[in-house]
Amino acid sequence: MLKENSKILYVAGIGPGKQEGMTKETLEALSKSDVIAGYPVYLSLLPEELRDKERIETGMTREVERCRLALEAADSGKTVSLVCSGDAGIYGMAGPVLSLAKDFPEVEVRILPGVTAASAGAAVLGAPLMHDFAVISMSDRLTPFPLIGKRLRLAAEADLVIVLYNPESKGRAGYLKKACDILLEILPPDRAAGYVRQIGREGQQAWTGTLGELREETADMFTTVFIGNSTTHISGGRMITERGYDI
Amino acid sequence: MLKENSKILYVAGIGPGKQEGMTKETLEALSKSDVIAGYPVYLSLLPEELRDKERIETGMTREVERCRLALEAADSGKTVSLVCSGDAGIYGMAGPVLSLAKDFPEVEVRILPGVTAASAGAAVLGAPLMHDFAVISMSDRLTPFPLIGKRLRLAAEADLVIVLYNPESKGRAGYLKKACDILLEILPPDRAAGYVRQIGREGQQAWTGTLGELREETADMFTTVFIGNSTTHISGGRMITERGYDI
Repeated sequence: MLKENSKILYVAGIGPGKQEGMTKETLEALSKSDVIAGYPVYLSLLPEELRDKERIETGMTREVERCRLALEAADSGKTVSLVCSGDAGIYGMAGPVLSLAKDFPEVEVRILPGVTAASAGAAVLGAPLMHDFAVISMSDRLTPFPLIGKRLRLAAEADLVIVLYNPESKGRAGYLKKACDILLEILPPDRAAGYVRQIGREGQQAWTGTLGELREETADMFTTVFIGNSTTHISGGRMITERGYDI
Repeated sequence: MLKENSKILYVAGIGPGKQEGMTKETLEALSKSDVIAGYPVYLSLLPEELRDKERIETGMTREVERCRLALEAADSGKTVSLVCSGDAGIYGMAGPVLSLAKDFPEVEVRILPGVTAASAGAAVLGAPLMHDFAVISMSDRLTPFPLIGKRLRLAAEADLVIVLYNPESKGRAGYLKKACDILLEILPPDRAAGYVRQIGREGQQAWTGTLGELREETADMFTTVFIGNSTTHISGGRMITERGYDI
């Protein structure tokens, strides 16, 4: 059994951003941590009372360094929380931390799951995830684009609802259009679609329409995109996928 | 703008089960509700202080009735929370409630997302969802089995991590084996796999192994199953999918 005073690194998903979307266990972990590590944008979303804790901040593309610094801080005897937006286990820091943790055998890593953007965005749009779905990141920083395209095609053929994470960024302008063009090889242009930008944060924007119309929209890395399956419809501005209940 | 005293129905995901996994906004919604509606098993997981509130309970296969009763209670002026395990928007009650809500124009439906079993189970196993994934329910109550099989095949061809919800039940014994047999047409028997039963609840059990070994396991409707992609490995009992970081 681990002792109460073990060296602990929490890897915590903070949900879409606002404190109300964090789980009780994540709020408690943050509150008892000596150090909070994370990407600066996400640290700025934390509740005020946590803002005077020691910080470890490293920018985009320096994720591995951030994980190692967090493990080192925990190994030095501090209680540390490494925060990720959404869920720490979905494209988050849980993986790199666990891979690096073999160099820090005394540190106990505790992964605290959070509300991922697929769930938080779906709640804003209505109920697009009532049936089987695929989550696909459009970032080709670590994944070759042809593999992303293949996954989009097969997910469309499987009639899965498709959720796109990180659809565009400054360096990847036009990627949403590229994704729509691939999907339009298989899906009809009137397929229901929607997106939410800055979910649960200042300036949240939601949009619903068709896949054909989505092609003309632009997005950024804080946008989550939903493309419906064959039963998804928009009614009263809500995007709803039918489960098959007799209503 | 909606008035403060609007008729409100919260459709709230309570996460994997224990109170620590609920979001702050869901805990607050439950606390200010007059009535709590849900499937009896999930109502029994709620914190003690909520247990003396008025209840609406209907069993399995009576989901639509439960949603209608919750809307009727809200329409009568009570504040109501309809709870779902995990996330209300993933195979949950968000869809049927929104479809029925057109008959209750004065009720404001607020969907509160929660931590879904894919996130909660992944956190127990390690970090299997570091890359693109598909969530597929094995329940053929509302979906023809050949469509489930087609989705499994295409998800495997797309090299997606695959998460199976509701893999078996009393009436669907052997469905996990059926799923493995379909996946084994495409994937090698040494593909990494894992499952978690009763995530975050009394009696939680986790298992990791290979797809070939998974075929010999049994599951139930409270089990969430993970089949890795081509980069997933098990090390030190943890299931980790590589994102491609240079570690």
